[in-house]
Amino acid sequence: MLIVGERINSTRESIAKAIREQDSAFIQDEAKQQVEAGADYLDVNAGAFMGEELKYLTWLVEIVQDVVEKPLCLDTSNAEALAAALKLCKVKPMLSSISAEKKRYDSFLPIVKSSGCKVVVLCIDDSGIPHTADVRAKVADGLIGSLVAEGVALDDIYVDVLAQAVSTDDKAGGVTFETIRRVYATHPGVHTILGLSNVSFGLPNRRLINQNFVSMCMEAGLDSAIIDPKDKKLMANILSANLLLGKDRHGMRYIKAFREGKLE
Amino acid sequence: MLIVGERINSTRESIAKAIREQDSAFIQDEAKQQVEAGADYLDVNAGAFMGEELKYLTWLVEIVQDVVEKPLCLDTSNAEALAAALKLCKVKPMLSSISAEKKRYDSFLPIVKSSGCKVVVLCIDDSGIPHTADVRAKVADGLIGSLVAEGVALDDIYVDVLAQAVSTDDKAGGVTFETIRRVYATHPGVHTILGLSNVSFGLPNRRLINQNFVSMCMEAGLDSAIIDPKDKKLMANILSANLLLGKDRHGMRYIKAFREGKLE
Repeated sequence: MLIVGERINSTRESIAKAIREQDSAFIQDEAKQQVEAGADYLDVNAGAFMGEELKYLTWLVEIVQDVVEKPLCLDTSNAEALAAALKLCKVKPMLSSISAEKKRYDSFLPIVKSSGCKVVVLCIDDSGIPHTADVRAKVADGLIGSLVAEGVALDDIYVDVLAQAVSTDDKAGGVTFETIRRVYATHPGVHTILGLSNVSFGLPNRRLINQNFVSMCMEAGLDSAIIDPKDKKLMANILSANLLLGKDRHGMRYIKAFREGKLE
Repeated sequence: MLIVGERINSTRESIAKAIREQDSAFIQDEAKQQVEAGADYLDVNAGAFMGEELKYLTWLVEIVQDVVEKPLCLDTSNAEALAAALKLCKVKPMLSSISAEKKRYDSFLPIVKSSGCKVVVLCIDDSGIPHTADVRAKVADGLIGSLVAEGVALDDIYVDVLAQAVSTDDKAGGVTFETIRRVYATHPGVHTILGLSNVSFGLPNRRLINQNFVSMCMEAGLDSAIIDPKDKKLMANILSANLLLGKDRHGMRYIKAFREGKLE
């Protein structure tokens, strides 16, 4: 399971404040803690700062790289900001994200192609987020097909299968599970990725729902997630699901985590 | 999700002691608490008492029925004990269990046929528990085919897909997930059922593994489980997985459980 640490995101108030005040120590602390907790990539997002995103995203890239060696996940819908941030990366980052929205696709494609980076592919087109697995998988098919035709390696593609709130749509969970299955059935070798938290929007005890959701998505095939690695219960769940899926030989990682007190 | 409460089982030391001492109050307390916690059926098992199983199983049936109205799950490999216990049931019980082991199949079939009860069907034949999903699903196919040919309704069949320890076989979890999928793909309308705890044998923090296992099995299609309904975390997990599978309209049951403090 590939873990992208989601905490350095300007939609979080504490991060927005730290960016505004150029409090690099606060951001760097978040970076170090996430790596310590098991993140493979660190998401960096300055999207809340309209008009200043390029300046702040590049600042994030620089200060985070000063303290950790893990690759970044450049999280932006702004192609200019992406190109500028990419140039500063010491380790090949993950690009997040291209979609089937025409404007976004056209502006991101040249960067994605020339970068040779892993890329997150959102199952969204100009009609928005598809509400059925049928359409969501079709949007994924189109994007994977186009990107592969442009020379992007299947192994570099991370399809974000998207989660919507089950509180407003009973079928939302099932659509995500089914989309994961269809994407793998049609494109063996591709990856899927997901941010969890939307699924539990509007419900009590959201963490319980998110914890179950990640295990269930993993059973459906999910191999990457954008999560808070400091959520110990969520990480323990992922370790345990990995074990149940036969991806942790002799339970070595699970037992190591137990010994380190990470499963409590 | 159909919940069979597993606690009144003579392999548990406290239950064996209560049976031996004919401590009906202790057993009845276990029965009431499990129903309170959400059990749909109550398993009763006196299998640890070789030679006296009939006597003790029928005693369990009588004293449990004195305090709860929920149907029982008659858990025995002894056809005589089963027939005697069945006669005492006030509500149609679930019979647990028939298998493809020739002796067991032949002795149980007449009882299963004439009872019109739900029946648990173990994916085991005279070679033991199959270690691959291929063979396990094939054993299920054979049993379902035979039982349906004998007039048993598909809706009354609960295929026990079995769980083995992931600590000794990395693939054990995957075999269970895959067996669930195959059984439903081949026999839509049938049910699957599972006892969880073997899966985590020999590993630390077994409850974490069991909790994840049930959610993941539910994602694969599992619709019944033999569990300890007094395990609040496990029950909270099941409620949350139900919600994510779109089986809890508007999250009514989930929210009710939250208000009753059952999700903490």
